[in-house]
Amino acid sequence: MELQEHKFKVIGTRPIRHDGVDKVTGRAKYGADISLPGMLHAKVLRSPHAHARIKSIDVSAALALPGVKAVITGKDLPELPPGSQQMGELVVNPRYLSMNIMARDKVLYDGHAVAAVAATSPHIAEEALKLIKVEYEILPPVLDVRKAMQDDAPILLPELRTSGTPEKSDKPTNIASQVRFARGDLEAGFRAADVIVEREFTTSMVHQGYIEPHNAVAQYNADGHGTIWVSTQGPFSVRELCSHILQMPLGNIKVVPAEIGGGFGGKTTVYLEPLALLLAKKTGRPVKMVMSRAEVLRATGPTSGSYIRCKMGATKEGKITAAQVWMAYEAGAFPGSPVGAGCMTILAPYALENLQIDGFDVVLNKPKTCAYRAPGATNAAFAAETVIDELAEKLGIDPLEFRRRNGAKEGTAQPAGPQFRRIGYIETVEAIMNSEHYRSPLPHVPGKLVGRGVASGFWFNAGFQSTAIVSINSDGTANVVTGSPDIGGTRAACAMIAAEVLGLKAEEVNPVVTDTESIGHTDVTGGSRVTFATGYAVYEAAQDAVRQLKERAATIWKVKPEDVVYQDGVVSCVNNGHEPMTLKQLAGRLARAGGPVTGRAAVNPRGVGPGFATHVVDIAVDPETGKVDILRYTAAQDVGKAVHPSYVEGQIQGGVAQGIGWALNEEYYYDENGIMRNTGFLDYRIPTCLDLPMIETILVEVPNPGHPLGIRGVGEVPIVPPPAAIANALYRAIGVRMTELPMSPAKVAKAVLEKNKAPQ
Amino acid sequence: MELQEHKFKVIGTRPIRHDGVDKVTGRAKYGADISLPGMLHAKVLRSPHAHARIKSIDVSAALALPGVKAVITGKDLPELPPGSQQMGELVVNPRYLSMNIMARDKVLYDGHAVAAVAATSPHIAEEALKLIKVEYEILPPVLDVRKAMQDDAPILLPELRTSGTPEKSDKPTNIASQVRFARGDLEAGFRAADVIVEREFTTSMVHQGYIEPHNAVAQYNADGHGTIWVSTQGPFSVRELCSHILQMPLGNIKVVPAEIGGGFGGKTTVYLEPLALLLAKKTGRPVKMVMSRAEVLRATGPTSGSYIRCKMGATKEGKITAAQVWMAYEAGAFPGSPVGAGCMTILAPYALENLQIDGFDVVLNKPKTCAYRAPGATNAAFAAETVIDELAEKLGIDPLEFRRRNGAKEGTAQPAGPQFRRIGYIETVEAIMNSEHYRSPLPHVPGKLVGRGVASGFWFNAGFQSTAIVSINSDGTANVVTGSPDIGGTRAACAMIAAEVLGLKAEEVNPVVTDTESIGHTDVTGGSRVTFATGYAVYEAAQDAVRQLKERAATIWKVKPEDVVYQDGVVSCVNNGHEPMTLKQLAGRLARAGGPVTGRAAVNPRGVGPGFATHVVDIAVDPETGKVDILRYTAAQDVGKAVHPSYVEGQIQGGVAQGIGWALNEEYYYDENGIMRNTGFLDYRIPTCLDLPMIETILVEVPNPGHPLGIRGVGEVPIVPPPAAIANALYRAIGVRMTELPMSPAKVAKAVLEKNKAPQ
Repeated sequence: MELQEHKFKVIGTRPIRHDGVDKVTGRAKYGADISLPGMLHAKVLRSPHAHARIKSIDVSAALALPGVKAVITGKDLPELPPGSQQMGELVVNPRYLSMNIMARDKVLYDGHAVAAVAATSPHIAEEALKLIKVEYEILPPVLDVRKAMQDDAPILLPELRTSGTPEKSDKPTNIASQVRFARGDLEAGFRAADVIVEREFTTSMVHQGYIEPHNAVAQYNADGHGTIWVSTQGPFSVRELCSHILQMPLGNIKVVPAEIGGGFGGKTTVYLEPLALLLAKKTGRPVKMVMSRAEVLRATGPTSGSYIRCKMGATKEGKITAAQVWMAYEAGAFPGSPVGAGCMTILAPYALENLQIDGFDVVLNKPKTCAYRAPGATNAAFAAETVIDELAEKLGIDPLEFRRRNGAKEGTAQPAGPQFRRIGYIETVEAIMNSEHYRSPLPHVPGKLVGRGVASGFWFNAGFQSTAIVSINSDGTANVVTGSPDIGGTRAACAMIAAEVLGLKAEEVNPVVTDTESIGHTDVTGGSRVTFATGYAVYEAAQDAVRQLKERAATIWKVKPEDVVYQDGVVSCVNNGHEPMTLKQLAGRLARAGGPVTGRAAVNPRGVGPGFATHVVDIAVDPETGKVDILRYTAAQDVGKAVHPSYVEGQIQGGVAQGIGWALNEEYYYDENGIMRNTGFLDYRIPTCLDLPMIETILVEVPNPGHPLGIRGVGEVPIVPPPAAIANALYRAIGVRMTELPMSPAKVAKAVLEKNKAPQ
Repeated sequence: MELQEHKFKVIGTRPIRHDGVDKVTGRAKYGADISLPGMLHAKVLRSPHAHARIKSIDVSAALALPGVKAVITGKDLPELPPGSQQMGELVVNPRYLSMNIMARDKVLYDGHAVAAVAATSPHIAEEALKLIKVEYEILPPVLDVRKAMQDDAPILLPELRTSGTPEKSDKPTNIASQVRFARGDLEAGFRAADVIVEREFTTSMVHQGYIEPHNAVAQYNADGHGTIWVSTQGPFSVRELCSHILQMPLGNIKVVPAEIGGGFGGKTTVYLEPLALLLAKKTGRPVKMVMSRAEVLRATGPTSGSYIRCKMGATKEGKITAAQVWMAYEAGAFPGSPVGAGCMTILAPYALENLQIDGFDVVLNKPKTCAYRAPGATNAAFAAETVIDELAEKLGIDPLEFRRRNGAKEGTAQPAGPQFRRIGYIETVEAIMNSEHYRSPLPHVPGKLVGRGVASGFWFNAGFQSTAIVSINSDGTANVVTGSPDIGGTRAACAMIAAEVLGLKAEEVNPVVTDTESIGHTDVTGGSRVTFATGYAVYEAAQDAVRQLKERAATIWKVKPEDVVYQDGVVSCVNNGHEPMTLKQLAGRLARAGGPVTGRAAVNPRGVGPGFATHVVDIAVDPETGKVDILRYTAAQDVGKAVHPSYVEGQIQGGVAQGIGWALNEEYYYDENGIMRNTGFLDYRIPTCLDLPMIETILVEVPNPGHPLGIRGVGEVPIVPPPAAIANALYRAIGVRMTELPMSPAKVAKAVLEKNKAPQ
């Protein structure tokens, strides 16, 4: 059955989400809601030093405390061989992962786990932490990415060598890896330019800021099987990572995904899960672990701070002739920043003949970074889109017009090589150009300096593996089972896709998210992949169900299946007078026509549709305090096909809000000893609804040719443009190019002051 | 892929069951273990009268009790139209079902539900029951099936008419329906007989005696969706029945099956579930209901007491020439005894040319009966197998030899018409003839009278609908998802079937039983159908997975799928030099060869293989007390193919134990007012392990031609022969033909006394 867009009956509508009542009434079960009989509570002792050698750990006093049932340290975790492994589509280093969740001979950042205690109450476990005696030899920390690259920097991981290949060189280093993308003739490109802009940018480490702290409840049975209940983006990843870290057979671990109170990439790895399972094994009882906010900030995975140099040249006609980028990303204490993605995304919106991009992945004494919404792209775009803005300004060309002239389109080669298929970047630029917002004059705000800025962003989006089951109920309604935890409304999207294929209403399809034993392999909820890839599997599974429904009708009518047509939830027969049957009627007759109907599909789709966005923002700056107010914000995005427009808009609004926080307030603040000094949401300031206007959205729908319904991922790219758009607006407001994130009030006030001091 | 029996690697072995640890450590969750935040507890007020008109119910005092949140009576349930409906393979009368779970204008048995109260604690709910004032007009009850059939009997349901069709006749009746099976020339058959035996039998109403009382926890959401957690044999039935009774859309109800502490047919309908859901709707809070033992006995569904006349004739060569049966079964308060099954099974082990069987379904003032292990067959066999024994005795033929001469085999027409396919009845008779038990002399027990008896039994077994999903984990292990609650070890059986097809070990397959939204339609765990039908779906789903695994390997090797062979968990290529891959190796490469692999199947298999059993028992009778001890018991049964022999043996042992209880001790004891007087396990006496020897089993394996693995149902037929076998043994011991169940000590002592009084 072919679905044609102009005939969509469910896709593109805005039904109430299926999990809505559970979530607004508090019935939805999050990880911290899980409680099992006889359950213990465990807490983690964390390093108070940024860099130190562990000389000894004495847990005897803790173990002697009544109520304490077990204590584990790094010695209780299996030693794993060095090196990375392919896990599905991802490359993971299980040894480093294990060292990150529990330190061995060294602690590498403030908050690094050192020991864990399981006790009959969380309070006893906390008391016991104070009784653990750890003797440290304090080492000098390194906290700046450029200092960490210097020859005389303190070394975190002695096996890292300058060659990038362990033991192949004598020289220890903090540079875990480097990458280069180059094309054309850079020098010739810059020679052809009429204008060249080159600037340096620094950005701070920032956290995803999900409201729900990490949690895990684990149970271990005498037969070697374990179960983990956890709020995670990737139950199958948790299973695989725990299997590696604990050296348990993968098939013996069951992960049950709880609801999740925000992830944004930060809940794609493990912290507590293996510890809870190990403690459950040691004690024979279920073990629950929940982080405090301070633990989340100190010891989970924020995204990289970075240093970026960006140089671009353009002709006076407004054509970019060359671009050169050098970027160093903080990986945190173990290798693995998103610098590769930063390199591949930074110039992706533009058709460029001459470019060179160098990227460095650098370890330093901060927490190991993890994915954060379009990982590596936002800080990169902050650099490139500021330079683009300055080029356009110097050339006297409207910044959107400049982007339109240079914008990538179908056939443009990406920086990493492959050509784009049909994309909608130019369309997003034009959507903003034509927007009521961009065509309105900038408002006047008494006592404030106002400015308008624009910026664009790119994100790959991901495909990866997904499985779906679609079963027909005996009343003709249907159920959709997937393994994708629902963060952004994907239950609704999956139900709507099945409803579209089956000719049902959205409300007539029950979406179920289930555990790792009850559905086939499904990769993480991340990479903006769920509606695309899991939705693809749902589409195929529903088609599989339709094929069987046609077979059943053919059996009832004693005709050939190919003579049965399924359209809008009705089966009919092409070549004779059988009375058509609704799905409800047919469902009631399945039992005697061959049995119930269940469709299945498992996919690893290759036709991923990249996401592009262009944003415009109006700001007002208080020249005395440097506080920036967002007056108006409009985001245009190529969303392929918006299955449920409200949730697409919600993704855009959420991404923009996070980008604004990153732009203006958020940063990891470390003292000179490498101790984080803002470990709560009072000091680590994310935007609240009082800080922001309603974010306006423009959904541009350029169907993805790689998906049967035209769907592209939508969740990540909206975070990419905001810092650059706001920096460009700030320039218009105060006349200063801001090159450091966050552009916090102190920095803005200082810039205003220095600008005013400077000769006019 | 064809599986050949002589090559079975997993089927026929005895691995530890997958749910074993959970069950022995108490981690398995039964319905009564479910607890939700804010949960209320509800209790049911039950009629203290066997038959009465409800003149008024005043719930005001109960509602005023602090802590009481809601009270419901019959008025709160929708009124449903009369008549029965097809639900899947079953015919159900939703109106009567609704009247059974909550009385309307009349109560029809002691314990009939009259009102239910939800309160903040079970104790408050119980207190509130005492505050409900019900005014009854007491009516005369009828408690004997033959009296209930008389013209002047008190009438239970005024709409029942003698024609069997409501309102088509003026004459009210308690006879809900009648059935006749006839063949040949009965008179000629009896004329040809050399010996004729005719006897009358009565059997008491007995209960399944499951240890776990009925339970239900329900939640209702503001969007009209409800969830029920319940220990049930049929989560999909619970969904369908609640949908009818409450007039809720079926797709809005989700049923989550808890573990189940015994069902034996008694947990295939609903009692508490609709009440809990209705109370949850009324209160907006989750509601839990758990029955007491007395409620289970008074107000759930035991099996029919019955009156049976059986007449059979045979030639001196030992050929049965004619059989005539007249049977009336107690339906309880609403129509629906298993008399139809009684008629179809009573003579089924024998090839008979001339027969007539009349059956009557009769309502009376006792609880509505429900299915109980081979429903209707055990009391029927008690009659027929006693008469057979007497015929053989009178003809001087060994009772097993007599059965062998008359036994049904492939091609024999069943009493209801259809011919048997390949069956193993004769093989079970011969297995007992050749058994060490039957060939051993009867032991001498000082002071006791000893005897040996044999009997046979038949049960249809069921097919019905089942769905299964088989998914391959990334380490090459697998998961099997079904919707069949596991009562008798079917998780293990399903895992073993998948393991056999996939070439894995049983331990490498995780069996999952899931809820009604997470798997396609699956009929009840009952009718001995799970290993047969759900196992069939698992077999087909595993084959579907194998097909895809071969496609993936073909993609990797760039060959045609038909050139790939899957054998014992290894893929190899027929026509070139590709290195074979194990499933583990292939699983690791699925992502890049098309994605993960999930197989599905939904079946309604028609090739059901009937079950036959022949038993021998040695007993010792205390002539003074009439107490019967079971000295030795051996059961031979055609099990088709025993997937996990230990659990097949367990089913046989369990069925025999229940049959012994039915034979010797169990009965519903009502006083003259129709009040049950033995509402606990002290007075309603089921056998304990102290009462029984180890039941010996002989597994006869005559493969079922209607199943790819030869599987037949095994769970029900073992309960059929015991009462008859024990009655026949009693005759050998005391010289009296016992014709009433239970053959309790008082009756046996009386029989011994009268026998001794009688002239020798």
